[in-house]
Amino acid sequence: MRRPAVLIGLIGEGVIPSLTPPMHEFEGARHEMHYVYRPIDLAEGEATEENIAQLLWAARRMGFTGLNITHPIKQAVIAHLHELATSARTVGAVNTVVFDGDRMVGHNTDVTGFGAAFDDAFGSDARGRVILIGAGGAGAAVASALAGREVRELVIVDVDLERAEALASGVRGSANGEVRAARLEDLPQWIDGADGVVNATPWGMAAHPGTAFDTELLSPTMFVADIVYRPAETELLKRAKARGCRTMSGLGMAMHQAADAFEIFTGQPADRAAMLSDLQTLVAAEASGNPAPVAPKRGTN
Amino acid sequence: MRRPAVLIGLIGEGVIPSLTPPMHEFEGARHEMHYVYRPIDLAEGEATEENIAQLLWAARRMGFTGLNITHPIKQAVIAHLHELATSARTVGAVNTVVFDGDRMVGHNTDVTGFGAAFDDAFGSDARGRVILIGAGGAGAAVASALAGREVRELVIVDVDLERAEALASGVRGSANGEVRAARLEDLPQWIDGADGVVNATPWGMAAHPGTAFDTELLSPTMFVADIVYRPAETELLKRAKARGCRTMSGLGMAMHQAADAFEIFTGQPADRAAMLSDLQTLVAAEASGNPAPVAPKRGTN
Repeated sequence: MRRPAVLIGLIGEGVIPSLTPPMHEFEGARHEMHYVYRPIDLAEGEATEENIAQLLWAARRMGFTGLNITHPIKQAVIAHLHELATSARTVGAVNTVVFDGDRMVGHNTDVTGFGAAFDDAFGSDARGRVILIGAGGAGAAVASALAGREVRELVIVDVDLERAEALASGVRGSANGEVRAARLEDLPQWIDGADGVVNATPWGMAAHPGTAFDTELLSPTMFVADIVYRPAETELLKRAKARGCRTMSGLGMAMHQAADAFEIFTGQPADRAAMLSDLQTLVAAEASGNPAPVAPKRGTN
Repeated sequence: MRRPAVLIGLIGEGVIPSLTPPMHEFEGARHEMHYVYRPIDLAEGEATEENIAQLLWAARRMGFTGLNITHPIKQAVIAHLHELATSARTVGAVNTVVFDGDRMVGHNTDVTGFGAAFDDAFGSDARGRVILIGAGGAGAAVASALAGREVRELVIVDVDLERAEALASGVRGSANGEVRAARLEDLPQWIDGADGVVNATPWGMAAHPGTAFDTELLSPTMFVADIVYRPAETELLKRAKARGCRTMSGLGMAMHQAADAFEIFTGQPADRAAMLSDLQTLVAAEASGNPAPVAPKRGTN
């Protein structure tokens, strides 16, 4: 018997170092599938409508089961799809496309992935005020996930107030509580009395060391979540722990977004504990400078 | 560790029932590879230059290792390639494309596959006159393989003399012996005293029952080879055996063309005995009306 084959691509800029392909392939191997997940890297200037249309056409034509979609085409891809799942419609961005016969359906597992990671880390109790720092693409997924939870007041903070306001307007309609926008410089007045803070900026990544805000503002009663997962323990989380805060790293979101996409692609339940363990191994290997897991082998003829 | 992934496509018309994809995937599995082989079916009218260009671009872009190419684009694909192996250059047709960085190299494993099967069946001794029936695409591959062997006189017979003459002209330059073209109605005069006959017409397939010529013309000293492999024993081979001829079915060519392509794609030696056994099982399962081996599984979400 042939093992079932699943063929997935990840389209976006700078996707070659992504750890999502090995996470999927390891999980596929646990399901005894020939699960092949290919990064399809767009060079600068290649993220055009025409290229998006051709890549979608070709992927479907070539028997891909689906695609993950990342920066900078999470919004642009929508015009090419036939249907959006709620996760994608609310946030106005797609990170997962599945081919259903001739139809292409968009999902957003960044939204569902952050939500699942958040519930894992902090439970699904009602919250008072939650501060979201960063209103870019990742911030939009976080805002959408939080707006769908029991959060009385979501404050979206960005260095660019207009961007924060645009995101607040976008999620307000689907939010269970109030949604506000604020300037980063006004963070002190909003963080006082907040239940917790989520960082959705690149601060804390190896290439952006430091924190997005002054961590002296954190109090021990707050939860602190980060979406950065390389390194798994960012400067923000280190300092938050030192102040006695409960913390959540970006690993959970990175794992759950992949697990949710795996389930959409295959219809099989993902082993999330194993996927998290794989991701931790991958991140640790990368941090230690060890060679990455084996790259797809090519013919030498 | 991730298993090495190899991604291959088969582009052409009517490729869905092909047994080449399962042959490759079974062999890949023996090599512990995630070997995914996708049929990419062209509907009528889709075999345009523009579609060929786009599919080649997309396949390379999406991390395909290579492609098999079949009717009706084995000639048309050549204009899009950077280099041809000898097997493809001689016959002017390509059934295998391998991506070598930015370069696309064409091979023809129908030619090498028929040659290997022929040597397996009948040895590589020098021959006198060999008759080839059928000057279409398969006939061209057979003619090219025979022209490269020790054949004193190759007679290419077709119902369409012009087609036979065109093929004879095409292979004459690379032939070790003489190459002639003849009308099917003149077969009796040419077959008399011949060493053997190769059928490269569709006669004998389930959809084309019967034989391409009157088998009363066969004598027991002749070898008889068929390129048809579904069924494995064609009417021609049945009658040839009854007359005492040595015979060769199309299974060997079908297996060797896949094995040669596998080696080009992966750089690994193919297990040809195992591939032949797989092909026999696949053909038998199909003939018995049993369900085909498991189809690639798709998501149900």
